[in-house]
Parts: sequence; C-alpha cells; structure tokens
Amino acid sequence: MAKVKKQPRPKAETPKGFRDYFGAEVDERNAMLAEIARVYALYGFDPLETSGVETVEALGKFLPDVDRPNEGVFAWQEEDSGWVALRYDLTAPLARVAAQYRNDLPSPYRRYAMGPVWRNEKPGPGRFRQFYQCDADTVGSASPAADAEICAMLADTLEAVGIERGDYLVRVNNRKILNGVLKIAEIDDAEQAAGVLRSIDKLDKIGEGGVRSLLGKGRLDSSGAYVDGVGLSGAQTELVMSFVGANLRAVKQLDRMSLDVDEGSARKLSLATAENDREIIELIGRLPETSKIWNNTVLGVLHDLVGSNPEGLEGVNELVNIANLLEAQGYLADRIIIDPSVVRGLGYYTGAVFEAELTFEITDEKGRPRQFGSVAGGGRYDDLVKRFTGQAVPATGVSIGVDRLLAALRAKGRTSGAAAGPVVVTVMDRDRMGDYQAMVGELRSAGIRAEVYLGNPKNFGNQLKYADKRASPVAVIQGGDEAERGVVQLKDLVLGAKLAEGLTREEWAEQPAQVEVARDSLVAEVRKMLDRS
Amino acid sequence: MAKVKKQPRPKAETPKGFRDYFGAEVDERNAMLAEIARVYALYGFDPLETSGVETVEALGKFLPDVDRPNEGVFAWQEEDSGWVALRYDLTAPLARVAAQYRNDLPSPYRRYAMGPVWRNEKPGPGRFRQFYQCDADTVGSASPAADAEICAMLADTLEAVGIERGDYLVRVNNRKILNGVLKIAEIDDAEQAAGVLRSIDKLDKIGEGGVRSLLGKGRLDSSGAYVDGVGLSGAQTELVMSFVGANLRAVKQLDRMSLDVDEGSARKLSLATAENDREIIELIGRLPETSKIWNNTVLGVLHDLVGSNPEGLEGVNELVNIANLLEAQGYLADRIIIDPSVVRGLGYYTGAVFEAELTFEITDEKGRPRQFGSVAGGGRYDDLVKRFTGQAVPATGVSIGVDRLLAALRAKGRTSGAAAGPVVVTVMDRDRMGDYQAMVGELRSAGIRAEVYLGNPKNFGNQLKYADKRASPVAVIQGGDEAERGVVQLKDLVLGAKLAEGLTREEWAEQPAQVEVARDSLVAEVRKMLDRS
Repeated sequence: MAKVKKQPRPKAETPKGFRDYFGAEVDERNAMLAEIARVYALYGFDPLETSGVETVEALGKFLPDVDRPNEGVFAWQEEDSGWVALRYDLTAPLARVAAQYRNDLPSPYRRYAMGPVWRNEKPGPGRFRQFYQCDADTVGSASPAADAEICAMLADTLEAVGIERGDYLVRVNNRKILNGVLKIAEIDDAEQAAGVLRSIDKLDKIGEGGVRSLLGKGRLDSSGAYVDGVGLSGAQTELVMSFVGANLRAVKQLDRMSLDVDEGSARKLSLATAENDREIIELIGRLPETSKIWNNTVLGVLHDLVGSNPEGLEGVNELVNIANLLEAQGYLADRIIIDPSVVRGLGYYTGAVFEAELTFEITDEKGRPRQFGSVAGGGRYDDLVKRFTGQAVPATGVSIGVDRLLAALRAKGRTSGAAAGPVVVTVMDRDRMGDYQAMVGELRSAGIRAEVYLGNPKNFGNQLKYADKRASPVAVIQGGDEAERGVVQLKDLVLGAKLAEGLTREEWAEQPAQVEVARDSLVAEVRKMLDRS
Repeated sequence: MAKVKKQPRPKAETPKGFRDYFGAEVDERNAMLAEIARVYALYGFDPLETSGVETVEALGKFLPDVDRPNEGVFAWQEEDSGWVALRYDLTAPLARVAAQYRNDLPSPYRRYAMGPVWRNEKPGPGRFRQFYQCDADTVGSASPAADAEICAMLADTLEAVGIERGDYLVRVNNRKILNGVLKIAEIDDAEQAAGVLRSIDKLDKIGEGGVRSLLGKGRLDSSGAYVDGVGLSGAQTELVMSFVGANLRAVKQLDRMSLDVDEGSARKLSLATAENDREIIELIGRLPETSKIWNNTVLGVLHDLVGSNPEGLEGVNELVNIANLLEAQGYLADRIIIDPSVVRGLGYYTGAVFEAELTFEITDEKGRPRQFGSVAGGGRYDDLVKRFTGQAVPATGVSIGVDRLLAALRAKGRTSGAAAGPVVVTVMDRDRMGDYQAMVGELRSAGIRAEVYLGNPKNFGNQLKYADKRASPVAVIQGGDEAERGVVQLKDLVLGAKLAEGLTREEWAEQPAQVEVARDSLVAEVRKMLDRS
C-alpha cells in the first residue's frame, strides 16, 4: 500500500538575500526620504513612479561588472509581454519614460524617483537583493549648469537630512578628460579603455603602485590570486598615471604658496605633507577659502594633460564651467570640490561624474576606525535615451544609496521620525472593554498614540511585559475598585525603567513610578507624564 | 552573402498592464498614505515593510477566483531559492512574518503596511498588474474588540483623508453565521459551500432571484451563457435565502415602529419602502439614532436563523460584542453598521468580515450615475499563520484599495499634496548663468520652489512655453539692460492665463501681467505675486 504523503508545512522565510523592515526602520527611512523629496521639489524636480517590472529589452544591460545577458537581474518570461524583469536601478526606467513620453514631458525634464530596486547578486552581510534608491535627474539639458545644479542639490540634500557641513564632500570630475588622455595614449580598444577605468576606480583600495601594475601586466591581489593587467605599454601607463596623479601635481604647484593653517592647537596642517588623493581632498575640503585657487591649479594641470585633444579639452572646459557656477553660488571646497581621482565604475557616463563621500570616521566590525565612504554618485549619460529613439538626449543625474545614508545618520545619532511607543491601556476587567476603549479614544483625540491590550487579559504580568515590548511610555490601569472611585492608575514606564536600572527587585516594588489620578483628567495627566519623559 | 542583421531599437513601453505615475499623481498618493499612516500609528499600529519577492511556498494560494497553482501571480525559479514570486497582497507576507518572528514580536502584534502588490491577471481599463495596497492587521488577538477596533479605525481613516461622514459606511458581518446556516442546511461539501459564498457575493449585481437560481440549477447570465448552479435542494436554497433576506426581515419587524424621518422637505423616507439591502442599509445609515434598535433587531433575526447551531451562535455573539463596543465608543449606524448581506469573496475569512463602501454617486463612463462602491474590506482570518506553525493564531485586518480611494478623493475634489509648479527663471544671457542661479538660490532659501531654464536659451518663446508646461506661477526675466539697471521683470503666469482666456492676442499683448521690480526685492515681489494667485 502506498503511503499517503503528508503535505509539509511551508517554511516561514524570505527568499535568500531579502529582508523585512520593522517599525522604526520604516519610519526613519520614510522621514529621510520625505526630507530629500522636499529639497528635490524645491529645486523644481517632479516625482515619477514607474513600476517594478520592465521589459528586459527596455532595461538594457547597464549593470556594472555584468557581462552575460540577464545576469544580475531577476527576469522571467510572460506569455503576452515576452521577457520581463524587475528594475535594477531607477535610471533605465527613466530613459524608457523619457523616450516614451518625449512629446508630452517638459524639456528639460527634471524628475526624482524613490523606491526599491532588485539585483540578482550573491547576497552577503548588509548586501541585499532588494534595496532603495533615490534618484534625481535632468533629461534634455546639455548645459554644465544642469550638472552643477545636481551637485549643489546633493550638498543641500545631505545637509537637510542631517549630515553637517564638513562631514561630507561632493567630488566632481569629467569622463571626457580621461577619454582625451586615452586618445593621446592611443588606447582605442573599448575593452581596454574599460579596463583602464576599472583599474583607476581601485586607486583608493590598492594605491598608485597597484593601479600601475593593473594597467601593465597585472598583479597578485590580497588573496594571492594573480589578476591580469590591461596590458598597456610603459609609455601608455605613464600617461594614464599622470592623469591619476593630477591632484598630487596640483599640490606641488600649490606648495610654494605654503597653505598652512592654524585652527586652534589641535590642527596644524600642510598640504605639502599630503601623500594621496584622499588626504589632499580632505585638506582642501577644510580650506574653503582656497577653493578658487585649488580649482584653478588642478584644472590647469588637467588642461596641460589633455593638450590639444578635442574631447579632453571639452571635458576641462565643462569642468571649468561647473566650478565657476558653483563658486558663484557659494558652494566652495568644503562642500563641492574638483577631484580628478573620481572616475565611477559605470560604463554609461559620458561627461561630468560626481560622488558624495562622508568624511567622518566610523568603527568597522573589527573595531578599526575607517572613513564612512560614498553615499551617492552620478554623472552625465547622454546616450541612454538614444537607445530608444536614435536621437541623442543629454541627461545628468544622481542616485543616493538610501540604506547607506540612513546607516550614516544612525551612526551620527541623527535619525528621527520613529513613532514613540503607544500608551497601553491594560484590561483588568474583560467586561468593561468599552470603558478601556473610551480611554484610548480620548487619548487619540488628543493626538496621543494609544491602544488597549487585546491579548488574553487573564495574566496581568503579561500585559505589562507587552507594554514593555511595545516600548510604551505609560500604562493605564483601572480595576473595578478604581472604576467605582472614578480614578485610574498611571504607571510611568520610562521612569520605571530608569529606577529599575539602579534598584533591586524589592526596592523597585516599593517605588513604583505609579500615580492615581481622576478618570476625568486622564488625558492631562498622561500628557504630563509624557512631557517629563 | 548573408545580410548583417541590424539590432532593432528597444521599444519604449511598459510591459502590458503596467503604468507610470507622474508628478501630482505620486504626490497625492503619498499625501493620502501619510495621512492613513498617521491614523494607524495613533491606534498603536507599527509599520512593517516586507520585500516584493517571497517564496511561492510561503505565499500560498489565496487569490480569489484562482484554482491552478501559480495562476494569478508572477513567479519564476531561482537557483538558490527555488520558486519565488512577487507578492499578490500584504496579508500573506504578514502571515509569514508573524510565523518567522513569533518569538520576538509583541503579541498581539498590530502592524500596518503600504506598498505595491502584483497580480498576473488580464489587464483592462483601470485594471493594472501592479497597484498599491494599504493594510492594517492585528495578529494574536481572538477578541471581537480587535475586529471592532479595525472597523473604528477604518471609519476614522476615511474621514481623516477627506471622505465626509455620511459619504461612507463600514458594513460588518460574521462568516460563522453563514457557516451555521450551511450546517443547518446540511451543506457539508467545501466546494459547494464556497459556491454558496460566491453566489451570495453577487447579490448586488444579480438580485435575489439571480442568487436563488445560482444556488439551485443555474441561470443565463447577461451574455446569454448558462452558468451552472450550486445544486442545492429547494429546502436548502430557502434556508440560505432566509440568511440573505435577514435585512428585509429586520425591516419588517421594524416597520411597526414607523421610522419615518422628515429632514427638510427634500427627504421623507420610510424604511418600509426599502426593497433591497442597499436601500435599507443606506436608510439606516442616515438614521444613526436608530443604531441600537436596528442592531438589536437584525441581530435578533440572525439569532433566530442559526437556532442552536454552535458556530452560528458564536458568530452572532461575536457580532453582538462588536456592535456593543462600537456603540459604546459612539460609532453609530451613520459610520459602522451591522449588515448580514456582506460576505466577502475571499475564502480565508473565518469570523468577522467588513467592507467600507462610499455611498455617494459618481457618473460612470456612459454618463449614468452610480454608487462609488467599495474602497476597503477585511475580516478575521485565524488560519493563515497556522499554515506555517501548526498552531492557530487569531488575526484580523483590513485592506484599503489605495487607487480606488484616491479616485474617490479626486471625484470629491479633496486631494491635496501636489506641489505647485516652480518659479522659472529664464535665461536671456547665457553668460550670466551664475546670476540666474543666484536668483533661484535666494528663492529656494525662502522656501519657494524655483528653477533656472536649462534648455537651449536661444529661443525665448520656448522658455515661456516650458514655463507653461511646468504650470509655473511666475517667470523671472532679466536681460543685460535690466541687469545694468538692477531690476528684473516678473511675469505673473497665473494672471496671464486668466487674462488670456478672455482676451485676444492683441489685447493680451497690451496687458502683460508683468511688472518690473528691483533685483534686491526679488523674493518679496515673487511672494506677493504667489500670494495673490
């Protein structure tokens, strides 16, 4: 006889790489996104919300480090729509919208978008397959003023959500300059050019020597594996490295001006001691008064570098334009800075590129201090809409890494927006549920978050445990006796917790942060308790 | 020679059944959801955000009208997670969360959730494959007070977002009563019971006679097709129909009390003239003072109907409990009403069921007036968490149809939250971009939405067309001459549009709603213009 197979219970789990967000996590993110939206709207950007699903055809293949088709995205086939996929960013859907509605949208079209995106990548600690992005883009303007505006807005946004000036830097560069250098070095192969880009992008991690090896024959990475190099000749490598070293060269030129600073006794800095891009940029960032001279010097170095190469010159001129506009608006080097070491990994950028970095230190998992790092990046991508229409449509934009920025705000203790725990009205007498409901009704009418305990009221201890788990500030208690006398007991759980920390169980029982108040003054007395906590 | 196949351009289209939301559509929905979240939080509910992707196993098969596995959902296979799918509602993920975190969550757990859900259904006009839901649920409370709370909160929520009292009704029933009737009628087959449920749910559309036919042998539907009936005997059908007719029977009992109303000359109503459930419920809804007597009467009818059947009696008692709690809190029949004609199609409800209906009329596509209808519904589902854990976990909740509620608010002219168009600073002189940026900078610092025109400034007419498309209230103009004299021109585009409506092009040119003001008073003068529009 065949056994009847019992249907196993489903596992209560998210798929690998997905997670749930509870309470304060949701509130804090929403509060931050609302603040970002406020700034974006102030700059004239309009919201756009596209759906999570796009055709694979429309999405295209613009994920970084992905070569095979459909790799990196969640895709499946539909009978009536063919291959569709979850969006992997908010830029590809914008390009689709800009093409689809090109006759209806204002031009230039400034839009912002916030929402989840999905990446079918190997999940890891803190690395999820669904996460939020928050983008602002201007489609239809070739003007460097559009790039400058995005950079200024990014700085304003970071300050608006709670990152103080001095704790961040927006670094700006232009892809065309590197393209010009590549042309001069006669690096024409697209594959090889992309390799150069990826190598330079690792400067922060592997240093100048590492990049030099990667540009040439290759190098052993930290795991001991050999990484093939791009295969440039010695002369080609030197040309590329002179671009990479632009900051240092600018510093040498500036050195004779002896830009020493004495800001109190704690900080005596000299640019001449700076040994790498990060140090240089950070030092300049603390000297906003040198913005103009720094920009002029570094732009001069870049100008020398590209010589008469047309694309390179165009890039330098655009960068000069951006620098001038930002200076005129008072965005100096303590907020936005020209930095030739920014290249950005993504292949689709065609002009200005920018990155916002948080410059304060946090402690990593191993207790070592490290810089917080990048929280936003973007640039100009003039070819994404062209994919659809055949006509070039200039576009520029920025994407904020929502989870990283939120983590930064948490590290700085600057999140807000989490709703306080509710006042919990306990149930002493199951038959008088109507009375308890009336209490929460009054509290809510006064704008106070409140709820009746709805579990089994038999065990009163469970009700207080519940209030504790809810982070409730006040518990309201009314038995039959109290009801007859027209009073309620208010238990100050915040004060109670404080007392409890320093007191034994016996002492705590003797000092219950509890008062008896008239039923009529419930709202007033609860508010008093909330105000003192 | 083989032809080189040219890669065709991708189509700029969403997949079938998906759409984009622009500007005000996004703002209005966000404003409404924020208001709903405020009320939910006030009631002690905490936000929860699960991801869009769940395992097919965890989601289960609870879509209405879907028999085949995976039908109705977007599902695909992943190497490391097996079959996964986009969530089709917010209840199934909640059940998964309640099981997964059962040791960490407070119990009862009150949570709300807002976000998109996906249904792989045939799209139609106004019917999309991605849409928003907004749910509030209490997991872990078997108390009718939890159901009553959800109903009260639903009423509060509708009023908070702008649906006035009198324009909505929350109708409440209990599944156990119908289950009791089915038991008495000896309808034991689950398939047949589900058929009865579906037939009753059509009462509104096909009337009492139609339901009677469907319960028996079947009927011809409006398209002329024959729809098979449930196959009940005559006696069984009569028993079920007596449940369906509970409202009418209650009306007959009330008739002797001659509940006539005279509310001005325009409205003289008598319950005795009511011919169907909708009319009855609407009339009672206008007579909140009769709440108690109506509830008593209709609950009495239901009590008679279930006789001594234990499940039926339990249902009546729960409903009595809910009615009493709501009455005690002042939620009378003009907001929440006991209505035995509510059954709700979904199979998973196990107790109380409720539905919020908007009672005002709108004009349909063909110009005919019709009631707006349902915008929210829910009920008690005690078995969804049990799927995972094997242990029964009582739960109750409501889901608001976000798009329908938003459509209702639009129909009533009660949406808000759309950002006004930005002040547009035009570009007369490309070299003075810095000056124009300074102007928008000042306006933004004063909290005024503003932007510089970033398109090609050559054609000034295009700049004004752009301002028009942006619904800009004010355009700022400064040529070299004005700059020298330290002034700017302000064009009042709102006033301009008004003038333009009644004026010829010549007259309009003579009355340009345009003033010249000092550059220094730009912000003050713009604000003046904004205030008068």
